[in-house]
Amino acid sequence: MSEVSEPRESGGLLAALPEWTSDALEEVEAGLVGVAERAPERLRGPAMEALTSGGKRLRPLLLLLAGGMGAPDRGRLLEAAVAIEVLHTATLIHDDIVDRAEMRRGVPTAVAKYGRPVAVATGDYLFAETFRALAGIGDPRLIRSFAEASEGLASGELTQYRANGVVVDVEAYLEHIKLKTAGLFKVACVAGGTLGGMTIRQVDALANYGQALGIAFQMSDDIMDLVGKPGLMGKGIGTDLVEGTVTLPVIFALKDGDAETIRRVLEDRNPSAEALEAGIEAVLATDAIKKTEAWADREIGSALRDLALLPASSEREFLRMVAREVVGREV
Amino acid sequence: MSEVSEPRESGGLLAALPEWTSDALEEVEAGLVGVAERAPERLRGPAMEALTSGGKRLRPLLLLLAGGMGAPDRGRLLEAAVAIEVLHTATLIHDDIVDRAEMRRGVPTAVAKYGRPVAVATGDYLFAETFRALAGIGDPRLIRSFAEASEGLASGELTQYRANGVVVDVEAYLEHIKLKTAGLFKVACVAGGTLGGMTIRQVDALANYGQALGIAFQMSDDIMDLVGKPGLMGKGIGTDLVEGTVTLPVIFALKDGDAETIRRVLEDRNPSAEALEAGIEAVLATDAIKKTEAWADREIGSALRDLALLPASSEREFLRMVAREVVGREV
Repeated sequence: MSEVSEPRESGGLLAALPEWTSDALEEVEAGLVGVAERAPERLRGPAMEALTSGGKRLRPLLLLLAGGMGAPDRGRLLEAAVAIEVLHTATLIHDDIVDRAEMRRGVPTAVAKYGRPVAVATGDYLFAETFRALAGIGDPRLIRSFAEASEGLASGELTQYRANGVVVDVEAYLEHIKLKTAGLFKVACVAGGTLGGMTIRQVDALANYGQALGIAFQMSDDIMDLVGKPGLMGKGIGTDLVEGTVTLPVIFALKDGDAETIRRVLEDRNPSAEALEAGIEAVLATDAIKKTEAWADREIGSALRDLALLPASSEREFLRMVAREVVGREV
Repeated sequence: MSEVSEPRESGGLLAALPEWTSDALEEVEAGLVGVAERAPERLRGPAMEALTSGGKRLRPLLLLLAGGMGAPDRGRLLEAAVAIEVLHTATLIHDDIVDRAEMRRGVPTAVAKYGRPVAVATGDYLFAETFRALAGIGDPRLIRSFAEASEGLASGELTQYRANGVVVDVEAYLEHIKLKTAGLFKVACVAGGTLGGMTIRQVDALANYGQALGIAFQMSDDIMDLVGKPGLMGKGIGTDLVEGTVTLPVIFALKDGDAETIRRVLEDRNPSAEALEAGIEAVLATDAIKKTEAWADREIGSALRDLALLPASSEREFLRMVAREVVGREV
């Protein structure tokens, strides 16, 4: 559950991206390279690899779009967009230490390639860099929301670990993904709205949109771990099950289906291919996927209602499409 | 080298502490307990233990004293004093993961007692808490200096690791202790001066004082690792040597003395008592201690000159005594 999938790309979706954001995203990319280049010598390699290893920049994009609905200072908006991806990256590096993960996005993790000391220090450095950049932007509201989200991420990281192999209930699951996934989505939207100079009511609507989107995103990712998904990310089917991560469909299936078979996979760090397949089949034999889809759908419905409170714009239209895409609705 | 010893207490020194600071330090203590109490459930235990395990609160004290030389808002000054100790503690927790340390201040480390996932998350949480608190204070200059110091700490952490068992030269040593020890001393003084509303020139003088004090402190600690020191800290003689940490006297002795004997201890993670004693003897047979003392003395001389640029006050007098105490001069 620690990595969130990116939206399935389609001509329709990308074509709808407001024109200015393409340039902005390129500048974010350059900004991320700059962060790595300024890192102390021994952290430069791992920082560069982690910051440029193919993240889809969803959080920066959300931040840019939310900001673009108002009238932001472009430079500050870009700096905040870089900062949120740097914070996200710092978290992933520390997550991989906790999980002893070997690979991420198809390349070796910092901890696998450079060892724990370098990985701890690189994450700490990028974390500090986030707040250095935010201090430069100078808006304490941004710093507070980033810091609060970071506290949630740290706490969520551990919940995930502790939940491994243990049954969690729906409430604990929601609590966890709000901290671990939806938190940064929400902050991205809030930071953008704040820098865009939007009203408190509008920033609230953006916050709700971001959180609901993040929750639906995670649920969608949970489903794809069981039924497969198109292409790019290189994450095999059943990864969550093998890692003992109890996702929402698994929670439903444990209640409604052949719990023993599912539990066998969850509790075995090295299940056989047969055991894994049986576990997946046991989940798919229930209504777990359908129930999860329905939940994600409700979240997206709520996200769209919040979006409707914001002024019409090409940015809003794109955020609407992103939301619908997450739950596989026709764009 | 990762832990800095505290000033040797003496009736003279403590009696000179400006009266208001005793109350303030008690409030800092209560603030630290509050931070731990507000932590998410699974981080509360390790956070509480790390935050209340007998640190001498030297960084908060420096911050309070520097602030007290101006006219600070008392509440914000206390919050900043808590924040700097929280940051320091976060760093120690991650240091102990890197070093696989079992004990600190006579009690088991977070990583030894709770395991790596909890220790990573607790450090991350306290780090985020530092910046949440600073956002509440609302002065971007503070956030920037804390963030820059944190970057230095992350980088210094790794330098220390990489230097283990490898000969470092004086320049690398200085670079390292500036990041790893003197950085937070400096930030404590800068933050206090900033919140005290002092002039840029005065804040600069405080910055120089803090950095020189931190450097001398570390050198004094290096010496005490070889010749022993009074009481409290429970750190045995020769710990740095056993851990392969190349301190300043060791660098001097490697150049001037029986390098082979010293190197044998540095490169063996489990040297015999005889090998360790021989290593210490080999250092003491040179002028290494005397040279290190002279260097620390020069740093303190510089610290005192900067202090003289500040307005006379009981706070300044105490900072002067702290500096002299570090190098064992008569108070």
